[in-house]
Order: sequence, then structure tokens, then C-alpha cells
Amino acid sequence: MLLGRVVGTLVSTRKEPSLDGLKFLVLKQLDIDCQETGGYRVAADAVGAGLGEIVLYATGSAARQTKVTDRRPCDGVIMAIVDLLEVDGTIKYDKAEAG
Amino acid sequence: MLLGRVVGTLVSTRKEPSLDGLKFLVLKQLDIDCQETGGYRVAADAVGAGLGEIVLYATGSAARQTKVTDRRPCDGVIMAIVDLLEVDGTIKYDKAEAG
Amino acid sequence: MLLGRVVGTLVSTRKEPSLDGLKFLVLKQLDIDCQETGGYRVAADAVGAGLGEIVLYATGSAARQTKVTDRRPCDGVIMAIVDLLEVDGTIKYDKAEAG
Amino acid sequence: MLLGRVVGTLVSTRKEPSLDGLKFLVLKQLDIDCQETGGYRVAADAVGAGLGEIVLYATGSAARQTKVTDRRPCDGVIMAIVDLLEVDGTIKYDKAEAG
Amino acid sequence: MLLGRVVGTLVSTRKEPSLDGLKFLVLKQLDIDCQETGGYRVAADAVGAGLGEIVLYATGSAARQTKVTDRRPCDGVIMAIVDLLEVDGTIKYDKAEAG
Repeated sequence: MLLGRVVGTLVSTRKEPSLDGLKFLVLKQLDIDCQETGGYRVAADAVGAGLGEIVLYATGSAARQTKVTDRRPCDGVIMAIVDLLEVDGTIKYDKAEAG
Repeated sequence: MLLGRVVGTLVSTRKEPSLDGLKFLVLKQLDIDCQETGGYRVAADAVGAGLGEIVLYATGSAARQTKVTDRRPCDGVIMAIVDLLEVDGTIKYDKAEAG
Repeated sequence: MLLGRVVGTLVSTRKEPSLDGLKFLVLKQLDIDCQETGGYRVAADAVGAGLGEIVLYATGSAARQTKVTDRRPCDGVIMAIVDLLEVDGTIKYDKAEAG
Repeated sequence: MLLGRVVGTLVSTRKEPSLDGLKFLVLKQLDIDCQETGGYRVAADAVGAGLGEIVLYATGSAARQTKVTDRRPCDGVIMAIVDLLEVDGTIKYDKAEAG
Repeated sequence: MLLGRVVGTLVSTRKEPSLDGLKFLVLKQLDIDCQETGGYRVAADAVGAGLGEIVLYATGSAARQTKVTDRRPCDGVIMAIVDLLEVDGTIKYDKAEAG
């Protein structure tokens, strides 16, 4: 999994019918220090993530292993909202303080 | 999923039989600002996308989770046509205006 | 899927038994203008592609969705021979003329 | 599989329910000489890896082939702790000496 | 599939139990001219490859389609030992001569 920040939304009315009701969020990819890498990903939201939140997302077939994405043509899913990220003994992100 | 713009078509008569009837479109990959990245992808069309439209495409096994691609040797599918893309509070793309 | 040109062959006698009879071709990856990118891929041939032909290949689990590759340890397959590629209103490749 | 060093932990309370109890570790990716590449990955821990240990991790659908990750939305798993890595006749890493 | 040269071994005693008995080899990735690219991969050995040999390896779910890797958390497998590689009419590698 990689880290991303929720930065936007994508609306589509003409799509594969099985995707009805699925919410697509736009993520900016983050590096291990929670800095933006320049990359992005559009992912289905399985956890009710909000704008600005730092999340963990999974890609590939793993993206279909949630209730909302099961058997849907979806290759990226937000499966967790990050509360705390600690790297090399340093707190890189603390949702309680960031929030 | 990533964003792409439909820029062309690919015709093939000699192919795996299960692919008969599947439409292949050529996509230029777009970044989060809807600018071309230089990359491309050939994807099956599951939604009736047209030339010039901005679409969302899925890769990997997700590309087989549509009615037209089920169990076919296809690793990329257009599964949604983008109506509106909003990033960091800015409308990056609005199909109503672009169209 | 991506575009490739068939440039060579690979012979192996010691291999996973399920691969017996499968033909491995060497592909140079092509960009959207049918120019070589510097990358390559060895792929199973599901369509009887010949040296010099421009083909479409699929990777990942999609590569096992053909009769010859089903349930084999193969992550790339040539699933279509390209007849015509049109991008931005320009014919980038026409097999009838190239041949 | 690729090599990584366990450098941190990630805590999430709001996540896909099936992920409850799964431990997420932060890995810095290593090259063949066990030097950091600048990349990272968050992976589920299937083997009880500790901070500082060099591990082997698998990505994609392989990441769900362990008891703790089976059918969960997880695309990276630590499936082995490295004891000894020998490349070109040289010991690149020996856990007994490193530990 | 891509080409690699077997350059080393990896030993692990603490690992997912299903991996017991599987041999992990270290591969340096090769380009189409059989030159090293700087990349590497640790792969399970399904064919009894030896140090120095040039092999073909598959990644992703394909890596589980061999007898030794079936349903194991393994995302790379050596599935063939290369005897002969011919590209653009030139023999790039001939095991009989190299050996």
C-alpha cells in the first residue's frame, strides 16, 4: 500500500453499471515523509475518507476486496484512514494534531 | 484508476477469438491537471466513449470486471466517462463546458 | 494493452512443464507513434505473430486468458496483430502498407 | 519479491473491517546491495518482523496468500525475514552479524 | 516475462509456513541485449536454475502458476532457463557457447 492525500472528487454519470453508487476520490501520492510525489491516483472510497485526509490505498486486485468494490472494474481503493505514521522513530503524521 | 483522453482507434482482424466485437481505443494518459504525460494505453471500451472525451480507465485484473471484457485477455478498460473533476477546490475539467 | 514489434525468439528446453508447446516471442515496446521506447518484453504468442509485425500485448493475469496460456506461468501474451492504428486523425500504422 | 527494511509503523482505526488486527509496517525499499532506493511501501506483516530487520515482501495478489491477509484489501505483505543474502559470491547481508 | 541472470541466493528461516522448501534466487534484470539494467528481483525457482544462468521470470499472479509456488505468497518465479535468444537476426545469447 502507499500513502495518499485526498484532494478531490470525480463525477461520472456514464459508466459501467456495477460502479453505480461508488464514490471516486482523487489522491495525490505521498512519499514516506508525507510529501507529494507529483503522482496521483483515482480510487474508490471504502472508508468514508474526507478531503485533506491522509489515507492508505491499495491497487490491483486487492482493490476489489472491499464490500463496495467487490467484482467491480476498480483498480484502486482507499482502505484505511491514517491516524499515525511513525518512521525511524519520528512521528511523520498525527491525525489528531493535523486535524 | 487513471485519467486518459481518447485519441484514436486500433483495428485488428487476427486476434484471440474471445476478443471479437471488443472495441479498442487509444488513450493518452493525463496527469491530475488533465495534461498529457507522454504515456499511452490501448484499452477496451466498456462505456461507449468517443474521440476527445476524458475517461477513467482501470488496468490489471480489474479490466476484466465488465460485461464486455469478462474472461478476455484484456488488461485495460475504460469504465467511466468523466463529467467533472475537481482538485484542490478547482474544477480541472467540466465535460459540459469542454463539450 | 501496449504496442510492440516482434523482433525475436527465445528458446528454452528446461522450463515449467505446462509451458511445453508455448512459443515465446521477443517484443520491442513501441510508443503511440510506433517508435521504439527502449523497453522490451518476452510474451507468449496466442495469434501466430510473425517477425516484424506490430502487435498488441497484454500483461498480468490477462496474459492467461487465452487458450494457449490458460493456467500457465506466463505474464505477457500477444493477443492481437495490429492492422490499423489511428491517433489524432493520423494513420500511425497500416499493416497493408507496411507489409 | 523485493528487499525492504522495516522502518516504521502505521496506525489506522477507520478502515475496511476485514483489516482489523492486521499490522501495517512501513518499509524502505532496498537495492541488491541492501542500500535504500528512496522508495517505500506499507505492507501487512505476516511473520512478526521487527524494526530494523531486512525482509522480503510480495506485492499484488500474492500479498493475499497468507493466513493474515487472505481475502483482505492488501497489496503488500512481508512474507519472510532475511537471514542471509549472497550476491556474486559476496555476503551482502547476514542477520547474525547485523543483529 | 523479462530476462534475468541468477546471481545469488537468499536464506530465510522465519517466513510464511507455506514457503517452506521454496528456493529463493536473486536475479539481476537484463535488457534485450542481455546487459544488466541495474534492477533486481528475488524469485522462486521452479526449474532448478543455477548461478550464472540466464532465465526467464514471470511476475504477478503468474508467479503462482507452477507446482512449487501454487497458492503461496510469491510474486516472482523463474519458469524457464534460456537456451537461445535471437533478436533482430542476431544471437544475443547461446547457452551452449556461454556455458
